[in-house]
Amino acid sequence: MNAFLQKSLPAAAYFDSAIMEAEWQKLWFKHWLYVGRRSELAETGEYKVIEIGGQQVLLTQNERGELKAYHNTCRHRGSELCSELEGKFSGGRIVCPYHRWAYSLDGALLNIPFVDAQINGQELGLYPVHSQVWSGNMYINLSNTPPPELGQEADPYFSLLDNWPLDQLVVGHRHDYALKCNWKIVWENYLECYHCPGLHPELCELVPLYKETLATDVLDGVSGTKDTVAEGVESWTMDGKAIGPIFPSLTPDEVKAGHVYLSLPPNQWIVGHPDYVRQVSFMPMDAQTTHIASEWLFSEEFLECPDSSPDRAIEFGELVLGQDALACEINQRGMTARPHKVGFLVAPQEDDLGKYHEWYRAAMEHK
Amino acid sequence: MNAFLQKSLPAAAYFDSAIMEAEWQKLWFKHWLYVGRRSELAETGEYKVIEIGGQQVLLTQNERGELKAYHNTCRHRGSELCSELEGKFSGGRIVCPYHRWAYSLDGALLNIPFVDAQINGQELGLYPVHSQVWSGNMYINLSNTPPPELGQEADPYFSLLDNWPLDQLVVGHRHDYALKCNWKIVWENYLECYHCPGLHPELCELVPLYKETLATDVLDGVSGTKDTVAEGVESWTMDGKAIGPIFPSLTPDEVKAGHVYLSLPPNQWIVGHPDYVRQVSFMPMDAQTTHIASEWLFSEEFLECPDSSPDRAIEFGELVLGQDALACEINQRGMTARPHKVGFLVAPQEDDLGKYHEWYRAAMEHK
Amino acid sequence: MNAFLQKSLPAAAYFDSAIMEAEWQKLWFKHWLYVGRRSELAETGEYKVIEIGGQQVLLTQNERGELKAYHNTCRHRGSELCSELEGKFSGGRIVCPYHRWAYSLDGALLNIPFVDAQINGQELGLYPVHSQVWSGNMYINLSNTPPPELGQEADPYFSLLDNWPLDQLVVGHRHDYALKCNWKIVWENYLECYHCPGLHPELCELVPLYKETLATDVLDGVSGTKDTVAEGVESWTMDGKAIGPIFPSLTPDEVKAGHVYLSLPPNQWIVGHPDYVRQVSFMPMDAQTTHIASEWLFSEEFLECPDSSPDRAIEFGELVLGQDALACEINQRGMTARPHKVGFLVAPQEDDLGKYHEWYRAAMEHK
Repeated sequence: MNAFLQKSLPAAAYFDSAIMEAEWQKLWFKHWLYVGRRSELAETGEYKVIEIGGQQVLLTQNERGELKAYHNTCRHRGSELCSELEGKFSGGRIVCPYHRWAYSLDGALLNIPFVDAQINGQELGLYPVHSQVWSGNMYINLSNTPPPELGQEADPYFSLLDNWPLDQLVVGHRHDYALKCNWKIVWENYLECYHCPGLHPELCELVPLYKETLATDVLDGVSGTKDTVAEGVESWTMDGKAIGPIFPSLTPDEVKAGHVYLSLPPNQWIVGHPDYVRQVSFMPMDAQTTHIASEWLFSEEFLECPDSSPDRAIEFGELVLGQDALACEINQRGMTARPHKVGFLVAPQEDDLGKYHEWYRAAMEHK
Repeated sequence: MNAFLQKSLPAAAYFDSAIMEAEWQKLWFKHWLYVGRRSELAETGEYKVIEIGGQQVLLTQNERGELKAYHNTCRHRGSELCSELEGKFSGGRIVCPYHRWAYSLDGALLNIPFVDAQINGQELGLYPVHSQVWSGNMYINLSNTPPPELGQEADPYFSLLDNWPLDQLVVGHRHDYALKCNWKIVWENYLECYHCPGLHPELCELVPLYKETLATDVLDGVSGTKDTVAEGVESWTMDGKAIGPIFPSLTPDEVKAGHVYLSLPPNQWIVGHPDYVRQVSFMPMDAQTTHIASEWLFSEEFLECPDSSPDRAIEFGELVLGQDALACEINQRGMTARPHKVGFLVAPQEDDLGKYHEWYRAAMEHK
Repeated sequence: MNAFLQKSLPAAAYFDSAIMEAEWQKLWFKHWLYVGRRSELAETGEYKVIEIGGQQVLLTQNERGELKAYHNTCRHRGSELCSELEGKFSGGRIVCPYHRWAYSLDGALLNIPFVDAQINGQELGLYPVHSQVWSGNMYINLSNTPPPELGQEADPYFSLLDNWPLDQLVVGHRHDYALKCNWKIVWENYLECYHCPGLHPELCELVPLYKETLATDVLDGVSGTKDTVAEGVESWTMDGKAIGPIFPSLTPDEVKAGHVYLSLPPNQWIVGHPDYVRQVSFMPMDAQTTHIASEWLFSEEFLECPDSSPDRAIEFGELVLGQDALACEINQRGMTARPHKVGFLVAPQEDDLGKYHEWYRAAMEHK
């Protein structure tokens, strides 16, 4: 009689640490992961260290201006190369602090101090990590055989944000926090607006469709014509007015819609608004804890203009994120009840969760 | 030559987390567990949330004044229903804070918001938990097929407290604390008075038999005639005098004895004194940590009388509990020595521990 | 082409908790372990409790002035005997605080209180732990069949320190701290001077050979003739001058060398200088944490002399230890990179590590 309800993922997928470990191996270490803005590394030898799933990855820029990524580990006896989270290599050499083994910015071993033997520098080069840049964002992939890079012309999905000058924007505000919930709960919360009337009254005022618990097909990025901001609303801000100039490259429909979603599971989604962009990325800490980083991006001119302020956009985003944070943690805490083996998805409101679960199941079955 | 000593439980039973997990499944989730006084839920829709073994249980009172218990989890996508430890449901509905699914106080699903389809509310009702009330105490049972309820007329054991007005008493003092020891060590400490002369000098003054390390057959509740308070002592208080009126329903022998024990393993025992009742309950936090709650119960008239005070009873109980707390933690810390595979029981002082171990072994072998 | 590099231990040996557990059973519980100076227990019945690998060991001195060691656990129901880390047993009896079972300082059960039966005190004696004293140091062994005692005449290795009055020295300074690294990383750091030029500039000034990354064959204790302090240097102190009188029992070569190493894996090494001795011992806390205790030993006359001070020796030792502490933690943090399966050893600088790894592999394969 309740056959209209589809089943969600098994409850254990949200708290079992063995499943989380399998997800690292089969999913997180196989996908492209957002790790920061390309502009963070402006000069040759500037570096940044990020951590994901117990892996420290060292990002730097070589002499040819290319992004390079390595495991933050020396080939000699496994020492950490960089103990600071950011800095700059002097002289174009990455030198291990323990015994001074030196590597080039391209990862080749240059010198084994106090050893006369001829060395094969390639054979003892730094452990490489695949990396790419798309729209000003840096992504890494920890597998040996990564899937195609993001944003290829062959994939029309990325064209959703083609008219946004994403690679030229700069981060005007960033908020990092940890949620006590599984990472998939964060995705599920993002992928449905069934909770919007109850939890996001301010957002529902801006986007009337959300009052009806309906939304864009977020995961595939196909915007329905009804999923637009209300008459008179310009953007997602506290008063619904744009904080500054509309990006001039947008089409009238893109301006009118007020938002477009680009979803890059497992660890990032991007929301383009007419006047700014907000991108959220996250990393699991363990099966029941997820680190979130939310970034608000603006044009450099706007941020530098003394008469303008991004505050109304930031404040609105923080408001909605805070509401979602509470919901995600509430969801997690109920998941471990012994008789609760699986939940249900409501159609059509939670159809996107069904698609997301398909993606998840396919990723987990893939070796 | 030391054959008079019987063996205790294997040492690992006191610290191995795999054994604790088996105890949850085979023992704790199969037995009736004390979770509070019935009077805590006085009105329709008042609720309380308790946690045991990672399970949150929601206790409430329905429109017919009946106690109802459910897992604190929504059937939709597994959210926690109540995030506060106590409160009151308004309008007789239990509403999930995430997507507003609404349930009756009897657990039936009433409404799936924004969904037109006909729903079968019983099929998607809250996950039920068995509950019962005995002598003003609430008990739950997390199995699907619980054993008979406590306090049935068929079981003469409970008649030990028949003459105490337990259901009318109120909690005048409650002390919650955590001991760094396995829950079975708390039981063993309670079940023998072999430690009394060394650790409880004040108690030994009140009950002369305890100076000889002997005591009532506590587990079975059969009071020996010698296990009474001393001549001139009335109750377990700092000066041995009753704090107020003797319960009028007691027999002269019950008054003279000064105490009677009712043991309800795994998580509660009750001690009736002529003028008050003290009940101790506990919940394991992990294999080596146990949460204790000790409650002192008095008649409402006594507590409301401006000229009387329960302090001498409370102070005495806290004194003895504190002495036992130290002993339990000392016992735990020695248990992990590598050559210590098993301890010994001294007869007759520790005969009750042997009976308790029989109960435990039977419970653990039962699937 | 890089065949001159030998492989180190597998990376997992430095962080896998299952390997650490195997090391406890096969290695740490089979070897003699330093646990303090014999002079800490000066009187009959004085005791000290140490903890290693979850085992509490009670050290005391019996009526005949002998060192005795037991598990800190009562045979009755497994209680901890001593809750203080040090103290003195009164009346020559070790009495359990729970039920007053009493044992002699030789570990025999003397009395079961309130029990009339004849007891066999040997059968219920304290669980013994093997112990020995060498050069004023106490060592324990937690196996039932320990290897030969340290310092036997049959083993010429210990003669390295024959001319030092180690048993008469007293601890003038002790520093306890925890490093976030595996215990084997501490050994490897100690066993090579390949890191010396980069990390120990002050030490390199005192010992010129170290500037060339070469050192004594530390593990076997065979001093090369070149491994001596520089011309004009007397000892390892801030200014290279001895802090006080040279030990008169040393040979001219021993005085000239400035240092001699005695390595007692898994948990201690001793460095004899002409004017003082420093010994470092350590205990794993878990696979990635190691507790270190560094002791500086001086003659009693020197410490009591108002005109002399050990400060320059202590300060120098702390300086070098601090440099090594940073290096050990850096090494640990890089070890868990997924592609890092094994590191490499540089010859001849790290030959001693290869010998140490042979010792380790042999110990781990031995049941």
